[in-house]
Amino acid sequence: MNTYKVGIVGGTGYTGVELLRLLAGHPNISVELITSRSESGVKVADMFPNLRGFYDLAFQEPDISLFKQCDLIFFATPNGVAMKQVHALLDAGVKIIDLAADFRIKDISIWEKWYSMPHASPHIVEKAIYGLPEINRNLIKNADIVANPGCYATAVQLGLIPLVENQMIDVSHIIANAVSGVSGAGRAANVATLLCEATESFKAYAAHGHRHLPEIKQQLENIANTQIGLTFVPHLVPMSRGIHASIYAIEKQCYDIQTIQDIFENRYQDEPFVDVLPLGSHPETRTVKGANICRIAVQKPQDGDVILILSVVDNLVKGAAGQAIQNMNIMLGLEESLGLSAVPLAP
Amino acid sequence: MNTYKVGIVGGTGYTGVELLRLLAGHPNISVELITSRSESGVKVADMFPNLRGFYDLAFQEPDISLFKQCDLIFFATPNGVAMKQVHALLDAGVKIIDLAADFRIKDISIWEKWYSMPHASPHIVEKAIYGLPEINRNLIKNADIVANPGCYATAVQLGLIPLVENQMIDVSHIIANAVSGVSGAGRAANVATLLCEATESFKAYAAHGHRHLPEIKQQLENIANTQIGLTFVPHLVPMSRGIHASIYAIEKQCYDIQTIQDIFENRYQDEPFVDVLPLGSHPETRTVKGANICRIAVQKPQDGDVILILSVVDNLVKGAAGQAIQNMNIMLGLEESLGLSAVPLAP
Amino acid sequence: MNTYKVGIVGGTGYTGVELLRLLAGHPNISVELITSRSESGVKVADMFPNLRGFYDLAFQEPDISLFKQCDLIFFATPNGVAMKQVHALLDAGVKIIDLAADFRIKDISIWEKWYSMPHASPHIVEKAIYGLPEINRNLIKNADIVANPGCYATAVQLGLIPLVENQMIDVSHIIANAVSGVSGAGRAANVATLLCEATESFKAYAAHGHRHLPEIKQQLENIANTQIGLTFVPHLVPMSRGIHASIYAIEKQCYDIQTIQDIFENRYQDEPFVDVLPLGSHPETRTVKGANICRIAVQKPQDGDVILILSVVDNLVKGAAGQAIQNMNIMLGLEESLGLSAVPLAP
Amino acid sequence: MNTYKVGIVGGTGYTGVELLRLLAGHPNISVELITSRSESGVKVADMFPNLRGFYDLAFQEPDISLFKQCDLIFFATPNGVAMKQVHALLDAGVKIIDLAADFRIKDISIWEKWYSMPHASPHIVEKAIYGLPEINRNLIKNADIVANPGCYATAVQLGLIPLVENQMIDVSHIIANAVSGVSGAGRAANVATLLCEATESFKAYAAHGHRHLPEIKQQLENIANTQIGLTFVPHLVPMSRGIHASIYAIEKQCYDIQTIQDIFENRYQDEPFVDVLPLGSHPETRTVKGANICRIAVQKPQDGDVILILSVVDNLVKGAAGQAIQNMNIMLGLEESLGLSAVPLAP
Repeated sequence: MNTYKVGIVGGTGYTGVELLRLLAGHPNISVELITSRSESGVKVADMFPNLRGFYDLAFQEPDISLFKQCDLIFFATPNGVAMKQVHALLDAGVKIIDLAADFRIKDISIWEKWYSMPHASPHIVEKAIYGLPEINRNLIKNADIVANPGCYATAVQLGLIPLVENQMIDVSHIIANAVSGVSGAGRAANVATLLCEATESFKAYAAHGHRHLPEIKQQLENIANTQIGLTFVPHLVPMSRGIHASIYAIEKQCYDIQTIQDIFENRYQDEPFVDVLPLGSHPETRTVKGANICRIAVQKPQDGDVILILSVVDNLVKGAAGQAIQNMNIMLGLEESLGLSAVPLAP
Repeated sequence: MNTYKVGIVGGTGYTGVELLRLLAGHPNISVELITSRSESGVKVADMFPNLRGFYDLAFQEPDISLFKQCDLIFFATPNGVAMKQVHALLDAGVKIIDLAADFRIKDISIWEKWYSMPHASPHIVEKAIYGLPEINRNLIKNADIVANPGCYATAVQLGLIPLVENQMIDVSHIIANAVSGVSGAGRAANVATLLCEATESFKAYAAHGHRHLPEIKQQLENIANTQIGLTFVPHLVPMSRGIHASIYAIEKQCYDIQTIQDIFENRYQDEPFVDVLPLGSHPETRTVKGANICRIAVQKPQDGDVILILSVVDNLVKGAAGQAIQNMNIMLGLEESLGLSAVPLAP
Repeated sequence: MNTYKVGIVGGTGYTGVELLRLLAGHPNISVELITSRSESGVKVADMFPNLRGFYDLAFQEPDISLFKQCDLIFFATPNGVAMKQVHALLDAGVKIIDLAADFRIKDISIWEKWYSMPHASPHIVEKAIYGLPEINRNLIKNADIVANPGCYATAVQLGLIPLVENQMIDVSHIIANAVSGVSGAGRAANVATLLCEATESFKAYAAHGHRHLPEIKQQLENIANTQIGLTFVPHLVPMSRGIHASIYAIEKQCYDIQTIQDIFENRYQDEPFVDVLPLGSHPETRTVKGANICRIAVQKPQDGDVILILSVVDNLVKGAAGQAIQNMNIMLGLEESLGLSAVPLAP
Repeated sequence: MNTYKVGIVGGTGYTGVELLRLLAGHPNISVELITSRSESGVKVADMFPNLRGFYDLAFQEPDISLFKQCDLIFFATPNGVAMKQVHALLDAGVKIIDLAADFRIKDISIWEKWYSMPHASPHIVEKAIYGLPEINRNLIKNADIVANPGCYATAVQLGLIPLVENQMIDVSHIIANAVSGVSGAGRAANVATLLCEATESFKAYAAHGHRHLPEIKQQLENIANTQIGLTFVPHLVPMSRGIHASIYAIEKQCYDIQTIQDIFENRYQDEPFVDVLPLGSHPETRTVKGANICRIAVQKPQDGDVILILSVVDNLVKGAAGQAIQNMNIMLGLEESLGLSAVPLAP
């Protein structure tokens, strides 16, 4: 069995530690280096004690020559970092997966508006592949650089793709009401995500506009070949992990619920990481905790003309690190589910 | 100062203990009796140790002659109980507030369909007043019997009333995506609401249809004088208290967000328990914890044609026991906010 | 009824907002000012939205002339601030309650060792009264300055006082195993108290030595007139509020559990804020949530020679702001329980 | 590679689903059957949706002939069930691991006192091996029946073994103050473990005596060859998983903390599932979540004569199902860590 060498840039956040957790169980991967300017010299197992006994690795300063010895580099950095660093690596033949947003949006002006900075590498955006395997698997196989989707974006897209592909809904007024566990806000010190501020409470945020909105719109518009009117409102839920999207769309004609169910089941029947639940189900986020799975249920409230899609992912796995590893497996020609077969943890 | 005598029927649930908590601080109320067949003889402070030092009262068997000595009786019983017991009390001149659903729905056939039992007292339904003071204050003043609104119903109605009254929205496709803390499911032993089942998870439930739907529709249709197309989907959030409703409605014409804000502020300017937040706000459920307050914010996501209303209540207070006491104050001619002036608890 | 003017220095932490919450319901107190250099100009209700509708006050720069117009000032500042500022206020006849540790330890060298700074006002330490009313009520009545006890220190002392006063235990080997909700760590941005770091986990901290240890020792040694051997280990529990102390002491001779119970009941029978539970009880922290109560139970595990005391307080109320108001009432000659009569919030 | 057939009796609780979760990843094990009288016919993935996609198995009625086709049976039943059913299986050459308490206590009269029923199979107790591999690995290798230790018992014993083996502490007054997540109370419908009853609170329970006490005493007395005076007090902490034991013992002579550390490191250096943390550490329960690891730290508070051991396990893994699989591996001659190598989940 081949062993591939990978590196992680910026591994002190939750996606970093989650990559390490998942890669520890991958039979073909050796994590060669992990960088952090601020924590250089600190052992990863000292910062993340759950990793004790699994890694002897320490954070180190970024070093381009070491990166070049890797087969693939994950960027688990804040938005705006990867776009400045990937050129040299791509030139050296290193494959890249960016878990941030630098390469997700094809229209540079839209990206610059939402991310409030000039883009450093528009030409790389052009060749980057949006890493949602359920849409782009074949393109990912040959990609040099993959833009790993946002967590909300994964849950919402997987919930809408079958309906949009089959032109079943009025795309001018889709509502995506989504909630996220607090790990989605990252591991930075911040009053708003202190336990005492976030526990035993629930709120919407960024109701005027969240950065995952243009990403979702772009992708759905690619499929629909028309403009999408999407209202996307994220909320913060007092738990660590999990995203739940409740997606409301008005059907174009009257569909039997079983018809909708069949369309979802057919669309995802060969997908290893999308699970369409039986009719009448309500997916719980805890049923995907720690695992690279999106579970989806379809509903027709009161048998009216609104189709309701309920879609859950673990924001750190299928919404981030797990999907990145799924993309890595595809890019490296490995079996797609390697390292991703653990059962979700419940309770 | 007058002291009124009140009784509580069925006080072993969360609305029962919450009534006791709030009434302990009410200057004009004496809780004379609290009944529970199963817990007869048990001191309320033994079952609810937070009440130690505040009540010497014990649960007792229901006794109609004792009820008749009260000025007002709260029914904190399951659906279907009050409708069988209120006749004799009303005949004896005792005022009634039912915290369950027995008297909320005017159309008996709709009630019987949603609650799966025949209604025992349709003629009392006729004269019962729906106890949302923000709509029915004057009717409540003279009511003998008040149907206290449901918790979700309170949050959703208060969020929609100004828009429906002013005919600002397309009422054929309103989406009310709401979440509730687990106390909304009651205090009965139940696997689904065990800490290990409900914590660190999020799910929708009753997506096909929840009992608060017909109640909300009835009330909004009374205002709109037309049929309302409402999709209402409740969700369970891993916390004890709090309801948050995210309500999406398509505007009939283009309104400036400030115009909408003004309409809300004007509508509720004299309401002691409705707080319209500044433009751009996102109400948090914890800001009403333990208090009889509904906080509301209006938003226009992406300046599109969808109006988003965010509305929060404590399901046990403004969504149940607090609103019942507000109604009691109105019915007894007391100052409306007596016993309801505590500051929400945060953190 | 007289109205007294009070001010709060450093009100942006959890003890600050808790003082405001409790004082809002106090009939004789007017909060005149609250200071914060960093938040000057911000309305307290904007920072703490639970206070909306209760305060119009804004944070302001400290201003000694305004302080002097108050009858009493609360210092809710970090350790080391009050000791530099109280002179002028005391000279002006303003009474002081310090919620930090500046005036708790009589032995200045011990204080300086544990707090790692030179003490600015040793002579004020001399005249400061340790504000545990259950020991020092009469001294507090005439105090100009009160050192409000630490949260752990309150729970542990109230659990041990009857045993030490009656010389019932071997004081050379007392174990106080205590846990605190996360609000005890304050409201500063800090990775360790992020929801994702602190929820669903439990750990000890400061096992080598915690600052409340010398405070507890000093107080118990005053009573015992001998050295105390106390091992005090705090732990962090994933909840917002609450302290629970499990105190283990070896009895000097064999006592019947009922004898121990009687001694506790007698000791605290006239105390308005100490509740001795019936024999065999296990106090829960939630039974004091939001209230100025310490609930205590005594146990003799396996009828051996170890006495176990279980003691709970809300760290922000009887462990901080509530006890400060209790002290204020005593200092101002008011009824001791004014503003402190709310029922604990459960669930 | 051999594949062994195993069965699970009584798989509807948290230890049942945890066995299934862990065994799904074991390369040499096939779960042949899982029984439940009440849920016969229900697919395990319908009851435990986290298992969807991993098991097609349904619960079935117990059937002795099917049990006999297995190599090993796990009993995940309530106390008192296994002792009535294991005879026939042992006679048929099937190996047994009981996760309940039926075979843990050698002194039948003590067992009968604590478990309040007559023991059905005293002669099997004689030959059952107590399944703590860190003490009994060699005996487990040849055991036909293993009594899997209690969760608290595992954490407390592993924390005390090195001290007792080396006769370093006064064994007449050991204090073990332990806390458990709510999953330790099982999955039965129960008011006390509802989210609203258990969240945001902390309490001791069974302070007079908990069933893991005689189990711990028996084991330590075997090592010490003398009577142990142990005060063991369990507490409930508002989280799903995790046990944390804070163990206090008075040293017999003055030991340097490094000496104690060395003794722990030496004792456990070859143990795959015991991790001695560096000096000065405070283990967090979340660092073992989902994993078969016990992490231990030693402390000397204030450099006094009390040794403090902090010991954490996941009550469902090293405290139950994981340890059972560790025992199974030993009994079947497999590599001890097979199926147990997943990284703990954090956050």
